[in-house]
Amino acid sequence: MLQFDLLATEGQARRGRLTLNHGVVETPIFMPVGTYGTVKGVMPQSLEAMGAQIILGNTFHLWLRPGLDIVQQFGGLHRFEAWPKPILTDSGGFQVWSLGEMRKISEEGVKFASPVNGDKLFLTPETSMQIQHVLNSDIVMQFDECTPYETQGHITTEREARVSMELSLRWARRCLAEFNRLANPNALFGIVQGGMFENLRDESLARLVELDLPGYAIGGVSVGEPKELMQRIVAHTPHRLPAHKPRYLMGVGTPEDIVEGVAAGVDMFDCVMPTRNARNGHLFTRFGDLRLRNARYKTDERPVDETCACTTCGSVSRAYLHHLDRCGEMLGPMLASVHNLHYYVNLMREVREALDAGTFPAFAQRFAQDRRRGFD
Amino acid sequence: MLQFDLLATEGQARRGRLTLNHGVVETPIFMPVGTYGTVKGVMPQSLEAMGAQIILGNTFHLWLRPGLDIVQQFGGLHRFEAWPKPILTDSGGFQVWSLGEMRKISEEGVKFASPVNGDKLFLTPETSMQIQHVLNSDIVMQFDECTPYETQGHITTEREARVSMELSLRWARRCLAEFNRLANPNALFGIVQGGMFENLRDESLARLVELDLPGYAIGGVSVGEPKELMQRIVAHTPHRLPAHKPRYLMGVGTPEDIVEGVAAGVDMFDCVMPTRNARNGHLFTRFGDLRLRNARYKTDERPVDETCACTTCGSVSRAYLHHLDRCGEMLGPMLASVHNLHYYVNLMREVREALDAGTFPAFAQRFAQDRRRGFD
Repeated sequence: MLQFDLLATEGQARRGRLTLNHGVVETPIFMPVGTYGTVKGVMPQSLEAMGAQIILGNTFHLWLRPGLDIVQQFGGLHRFEAWPKPILTDSGGFQVWSLGEMRKISEEGVKFASPVNGDKLFLTPETSMQIQHVLNSDIVMQFDECTPYETQGHITTEREARVSMELSLRWARRCLAEFNRLANPNALFGIVQGGMFENLRDESLARLVELDLPGYAIGGVSVGEPKELMQRIVAHTPHRLPAHKPRYLMGVGTPEDIVEGVAAGVDMFDCVMPTRNARNGHLFTRFGDLRLRNARYKTDERPVDETCACTTCGSVSRAYLHHLDRCGEMLGPMLASVHNLHYYVNLMREVREALDAGTFPAFAQRFAQDRRRGFD
Repeated sequence: MLQFDLLATEGQARRGRLTLNHGVVETPIFMPVGTYGTVKGVMPQSLEAMGAQIILGNTFHLWLRPGLDIVQQFGGLHRFEAWPKPILTDSGGFQVWSLGEMRKISEEGVKFASPVNGDKLFLTPETSMQIQHVLNSDIVMQFDECTPYETQGHITTEREARVSMELSLRWARRCLAEFNRLANPNALFGIVQGGMFENLRDESLARLVELDLPGYAIGGVSVGEPKELMQRIVAHTPHRLPAHKPRYLMGVGTPEDIVEGVAAGVDMFDCVMPTRNARNGHLFTRFGDLRLRNARYKTDERPVDETCACTTCGSVSRAYLHHLDRCGEMLGPMLASVHNLHYYVNLMREVREALDAGTFPAFAQRFAQDRRRGFD
């Protein structure tokens, strides 16, 4: 099931509520990424405590490890990974695309060698639906081809982007048929492709809308293109999607990208940035980003962000985190991941509060100013 | 300050209560090891939640990183690492010993090159006391020479063990003088050495007792000697120490070693085993040890230990932990470390309850039977 209630709008920005089989999600929302059935370095209890409402799982990776037999035995991903709230799974399309030379795409699907054990595998719209049915994710993504921005220096042409977009459309129809055949009780999202070409985006969108899916995503952004191009597509596409359905901008992005995405009418975001950057000592704060490895933090007794209510900022100093990083101690990435995810989750809370109060433009302006301010 | 109240005895086993500057510790106690100011892979909040009462810090490592200036700025280790309860620090003696060929021992102290940056360093009884004064640990260990069991195939002779033991005694006196000169408000423990020779152990013990220190440790066991030798020394030494002072068996050991240590009159234990083994997929349970990497756990829906109340056993399965290990996911060691430490902390709770009830011998027997039982 999926029910989407649009609670308020302000310009193109939207405040909504998504009701799924495993719970309610207030939007706009950021979804932490849990590739292998774990948000890297973060306890499920910590995710709940910081207010995460929905997390991602990865069809491709979970198919390879632990494998479907195991997840099936547990009745789905929720019990296996001890996360009772909603889960969205991607389709595997992005990962097979990332395999580069190791995969072969045809009308039928994608052939590739398992990066785990070399097994020859074949992922199709139908198998993606079958896998996601077993995972029992609340939101199932269609299998698509993620149109690259460039391939070995060659920028994708409009003609190539059209061929790719049309393949994704045909795959969307096959996904819907298989999703229905499986009587999957969850919700299938379509993915708008079309590369950096607005006319192709419009065509993809229009033909997906004909399928009357319960939600739509914007894919094929944040795939290596210049920032201006990403911003152009994000400004162009979301508000053209059906107003009464949730809109998901895949793989985006920085805090600034997300606030811009909300302004452009996006409801849902995911990105590995908070956890990946945490592991590299890159911390997000209200007043800009903090590079923990900078020697200036060696003696800094302050928390990462004095305005942050996370357990990391509530207990330890920048100096301690700097020390943990220097010693290669696991607790460093653990504490940093909790902080960064809390930053993203809290940012979305503030975004929703601003939308509830009808003050989103002022919020967005102050947010951008604060982030540029930096700190001593 | 240190106050030790002996609440009950049963044979040589003792139930006690240790009052330190940062809190009260019920004994017998297991102390998780926090080498660099972090118990590896475990949040301070998790340690508190599982009932840890006192943790270790490492003088040698903390001296090198973050360095004394930083810890001094924080007023000691407690605030730096966000652990408000008692801390015991070792003296650095064991670590300089572990450096092997890289160090040179003289009457004055130990010269060595920093393993971090090659700096020439000199650790003496006085500098060890000065460092531990800055760390502000509740229990300060004397600087000693850890007598090796063997060196490159050569088993330490009685003569060599005597020379080493006597050096540690002279260092104990220098430590006490420096500890008093610094007016350290915490408690200094002496360390009984003497290798595998009971007569030397007796001599070391007698001469340390003359110093009237508030507590005593047994060092130089679990240094590579055969298990029977360790058991012989552990059976010989603890009950000869002053009855009204706490007794600490350094670096020991397996759950079985610890229960035997309690039976022999030991009050305090520390060991890296629960956290180190956790990172290698070796889990402790009531019914024996579980090797997570064994393929039999791939589909096992049960918790690690069905009798365990830790958050790991309360939320995830052996199959999930097996999967995390296979994927090299950080959450694997995190969940395993919480379980193993909880196992040790809970074992000591059960030991104390048995001593409170006057049923320790029956407990020890059932414990050993259960551990040998194994599981399907």
